[in-house]
Amino acid sequence: MNEEFIKELNSVAERVNKYLDDTVRVYDNPQKIVYEAMRYSLLAGGKRIRPVLAVTAAAVLGVSEETIMPFACAIEMIHTYSLIHDDLPAMDDDDYRRGRYSCHKQFDEATAILAGDALLTMAFEVAARGAAQLNKPRCGAEAIKEIAVCAGTEGMIGGQIVDLDAETRKISEEELRYLCKCKTGALLRAPILAAAAVSDTMNTEKAKLLIEYADTIGLAFQIKDDILDVEGDEHLLGKPVGSDVKDGKTTFVTLLGIEESKRILDSLTEHALSVCDMLAKLTGDADEYDKSLKSCTFLKELAVFLLERNY
Amino acid sequence: MNEEFIKELNSVAERVNKYLDDTVRVYDNPQKIVYEAMRYSLLAGGKRIRPVLAVTAAAVLGVSEETIMPFACAIEMIHTYSLIHDDLPAMDDDDYRRGRYSCHKQFDEATAILAGDALLTMAFEVAARGAAQLNKPRCGAEAIKEIAVCAGTEGMIGGQIVDLDAETRKISEEELRYLCKCKTGALLRAPILAAAAVSDTMNTEKAKLLIEYADTIGLAFQIKDDILDVEGDEHLLGKPVGSDVKDGKTTFVTLLGIEESKRILDSLTEHALSVCDMLAKLTGDADEYDKSLKSCTFLKELAVFLLERNY
Repeated sequence: MNEEFIKELNSVAERVNKYLDDTVRVYDNPQKIVYEAMRYSLLAGGKRIRPVLAVTAAAVLGVSEETIMPFACAIEMIHTYSLIHDDLPAMDDDDYRRGRYSCHKQFDEATAILAGDALLTMAFEVAARGAAQLNKPRCGAEAIKEIAVCAGTEGMIGGQIVDLDAETRKISEEELRYLCKCKTGALLRAPILAAAAVSDTMNTEKAKLLIEYADTIGLAFQIKDDILDVEGDEHLLGKPVGSDVKDGKTTFVTLLGIEESKRILDSLTEHALSVCDMLAKLTGDADEYDKSLKSCTFLKELAVFLLERNY
Repeated sequence: MNEEFIKELNSVAERVNKYLDDTVRVYDNPQKIVYEAMRYSLLAGGKRIRPVLAVTAAAVLGVSEETIMPFACAIEMIHTYSLIHDDLPAMDDDDYRRGRYSCHKQFDEATAILAGDALLTMAFEVAARGAAQLNKPRCGAEAIKEIAVCAGTEGMIGGQIVDLDAETRKISEEELRYLCKCKTGALLRAPILAAAAVSDTMNTEKAKLLIEYADTIGLAFQIKDDILDVEGDEHLLGKPVGSDVKDGKTTFVTLLGIEESKRILDSLTEHALSVCDMLAKLTGDADEYDKSLKSCTFLKELAVFLLERNY
């Protein structure tokens, strides 16, 4: 693994963590516990892939990290709330997340429900503050809309509904791809759409390639997760392996076998890399070129990183 | 009760219902059930007090109903999601709402959690669409921020957290007022703040008086609810009476007695009416005057309506 890439990845993730840490404070008032629960889940580690994607896409599209940061972190807050609610007894009923108690086990169910609601609500507060400060606040409003659509009934929440249904029966590959496109894919697309909206470059070739990239690594990400559930290391993953098979869940591995899943994963990663090369060819003047080219290289390394990860 | 007021109230509520009905459709796709659950709770009646307040405050501040409608309905969607989550077994565990099954009883817990999440998410999508279409989208972004703050940890969600704690012990009048200010008050304040943000009149005298009005009827609203829980008609309320006392919950009635509660309610209503009179005196040129004066009269009648309601 490229050391410089890892350094850069960690560096962006650290700035994201700092922003989240500064944004979600604990206030010493009667509702203090909800702030503690929010921070417990939000600052529990995590790869910060979504905000990293937002920051990198913004760089390709000519928007500064400072400008995109509120939107990038809003998406991470939405991701975290979805994990909290997904772990609830009425949903996936998971007691552990990232190697420690899930939110409702550490606190209680009611607090976890409200902490999730609060992170979702605060995500839009943060994004709205970011939008109001843009030179083109209309673009900020468009970014909020895009994030909400990706997080909503035709995106992530839609995927969660389909996932609940899929747990009760065997589903087809087509259904599994639809599920994955909604549940995992939509919130990986959100950072790109937010960056495209903020930079007012929606529907440009660059934005389209970035979306293609996100959709590709989104599917790859899910297939890798399914493989790790079979071949992964419990300690590195921070959760028990083999739970999909135990729960009778349809995954790419149960449906297509591990070898075919790995083959598809490799081919998706190849595709993501070629999209990055196309993106690099579209870069404009020299100054922008350098920065954008560096971002394209970063996106390539990110795709390989997600392919090779063991957690 | 003034017939013309009731006609006008119903007329605004009908347009709100139409907007909500048009916005939250059922799509015939694998996640269809979540749309059905959202509509089940959203279109279950309800007084639509929050959107009515938004429309009226907007008229006082010189903004059209069409312009404020997305924000008004976003607040109603947030109100509905909060009721769905509040009724969950881990929260208040209520099987009935507005005379029929609560969302998790009609569907199931997982669907109710996700339908609530979806309404909250879609609220911000709707508000963001509204914001993007304004002549001053920055004002739209500010309105989204205000709504999120009112719905969040220092507003409604904060109130719900405090409410959970309050159910386990006796609380003081000061604590009860704080709880009420967060849980009920904040989302009645939201329509005013949204209208003030959209009209770019935040911090004007008119906006301040409207906020004073909303805060006053917010407290009155809660006290009336507490009184109805003792003296109300189960059929009109659509829920069992006496549940507060049965659950050992601290309310204004259990804390201060029914006579003192009624006295405070009357005095709050008087104060709301005098605020409306002050507001009417602030009106500008003739055209605006007529419209604004009519809205001030409407707000007075609304305060009386909320005082005299039996459901």
